[in-house]
Amino acid sequence: MISSKTQITVRFAETDAMGVVYHANYLPWCECARIDLIEKLGLSYVKLSDSGIHLPVIEACLKYKNPARFGDTVEISASIREKPGVRIKIEYEMRANGKLLLVGHTVHAFVNELGIPIKPPKEFAGVIMKAFDGKL
Amino acid sequence: MISSKTQITVRFAETDAMGVVYHANYLPWCECARIDLIEKLGLSYVKLSDSGIHLPVIEACLKYKNPARFGDTVEISASIREKPGVRIKIEYEMRANGKLLLVGHTVHAFVNELGIPIKPPKEFAGVIMKAFDGKL
Amino acid sequence: MISSKTQITVRFAETDAMGVVYHANYLPWCECARIDLIEKLGLSYVKLSDSGIHLPVIEACLKYKNPARFGDTVEISASIREKPGVRIKIEYEMRANGKLLLVGHTVHAFVNELGIPIKPPKEFAGVIMKAFDGKL
Amino acid sequence: MISSKTQITVRFAETDAMGVVYHANYLPWCECARIDLIEKLGLSYVKLSDSGIHLPVIEACLKYKNPARFGDTVEISASIREKPGVRIKIEYEMRANGKLLLVGHTVHAFVNELGIPIKPPKEFAGVIMKAFDGKL
Repeated sequence: MISSKTQITVRFAETDAMGVVYHANYLPWCECARIDLIEKLGLSYVKLSDSGIHLPVIEACLKYKNPARFGDTVEISASIREKPGVRIKIEYEMRANGKLLLVGHTVHAFVNELGIPIKPPKEFAGVIMKAFDGKL
Repeated sequence: MISSKTQITVRFAETDAMGVVYHANYLPWCECARIDLIEKLGLSYVKLSDSGIHLPVIEACLKYKNPARFGDTVEISASIREKPGVRIKIEYEMRANGKLLLVGHTVHAFVNELGIPIKPPKEFAGVIMKAFDGKL
Repeated sequence: MISSKTQITVRFAETDAMGVVYHANYLPWCECARIDLIEKLGLSYVKLSDSGIHLPVIEACLKYKNPARFGDTVEISASIREKPGVRIKIEYEMRANGKLLLVGHTVHAFVNELGIPIKPPKEFAGVIMKAFDGKL
Repeated sequence: MISSKTQITVRFAETDAMGVVYHANYLPWCECARIDLIEKLGLSYVKLSDSGIHLPVIEACLKYKNPARFGDTVEISASIREKPGVRIKIEYEMRANGKLLLVGHTVHAFVNELGIPIKPPKEFAGVIMKAFDGKL
């Protein structure tokens, strides 16, 4: 398993008229967490993206347990539990004020700049595999 | 089964640097579709919300098949296939330019203005049940 | 003067914990209104954008008079009062429930796909000028 | 003058199909910067908001000079140059990669939980005045 932790602070912009964070606004936090995870492995999602390769979300499932509120510090853990093949599954847990906010996952596939699915870039796949084998 | 169709036009604001709609931005369209579904049954989500009762999303799962782009007209079908109890499951399909964009679902529970789970309001439950029995 | 009217319905996603629309979320509505204005002249912003030409916002000023709320139908008027040169100024007024919500403007300049400022495309400029001269 | 600096990292969620940050998405960054400014004075915007008092934006003007891109570290300076009365004006400058991205300002007024304008809360006004007089 590869995993990392990321913290964000809830913006007022992210709340809705129920007084809590709007459900769609947890997805960009998942993005922050997986970009962090990738960077902690020594890879750069920004460079990947600059080179025209993207990792779009092809599946997203979130289960909401407790709401986050304006000003909360949210701790997001992102984990890769299964060795990635063509697809990568990333799992998330979010916590704030000692409470579990959310569990969920996203599934990703690599695409080129035309949006066509491609194999994982060699460097990327190599680093992930090494990390899984504890050789990073 | 209760179902309805809703159309939206993709805003530039909803795209990202991949040139397509950002994955989180399909969730507000699901919201548009289920509010439409509720209103077509003769109920008002705005009135419900004004009275302090909300139907927050407690689960959201989306599978992305093809991307929507700026200016696309997206047709969203929203369906309730299972008789709702304390929880309501709504299923979605989105299409544009003859292509399937997305399938997914959200699960909802009623809460009062303090965010505490409550039973479905009588009027609401009654209308949904009548619609299921084809008596609306 | 060239002007047009556009209607949107406020999404729950667009509200914040004050119970009203978050101030940044009026800007995408300005976008909806100016795209409508352009299309009513017989031009297509989507085609322009597909050809790699964009009209980014280089200035935006909004004065908020009354808040919009979830479910409100907002009428947006967009107007071009000054003959555009290299820059185009678009003015907005938004109303809902008989109240003035907002007055504001955006200023735009044409850029190519590298983001470099260019002269207005001939077809575009021609149509705008004809509209100003009442010859459209 | 009272001023402070805040850093944010551009999220992919904040970009649009031009490949740069969508113009409306700079406004939540202004919010991050002014909340920081307020907290550096020893005040808490979260507490204020919890007590039902808000500081809604009644005017926002932004001039865009250079676009921010995914992954950029953006430095935002927020300043109060004029002694606030019933209204508070906050000015912003954003920079990334040695370039000026944006200059702008927002104007705010205090409202109670019904959205009715009120005088600045005593504690808040007192701290701001002390800071202006260099006595904080």
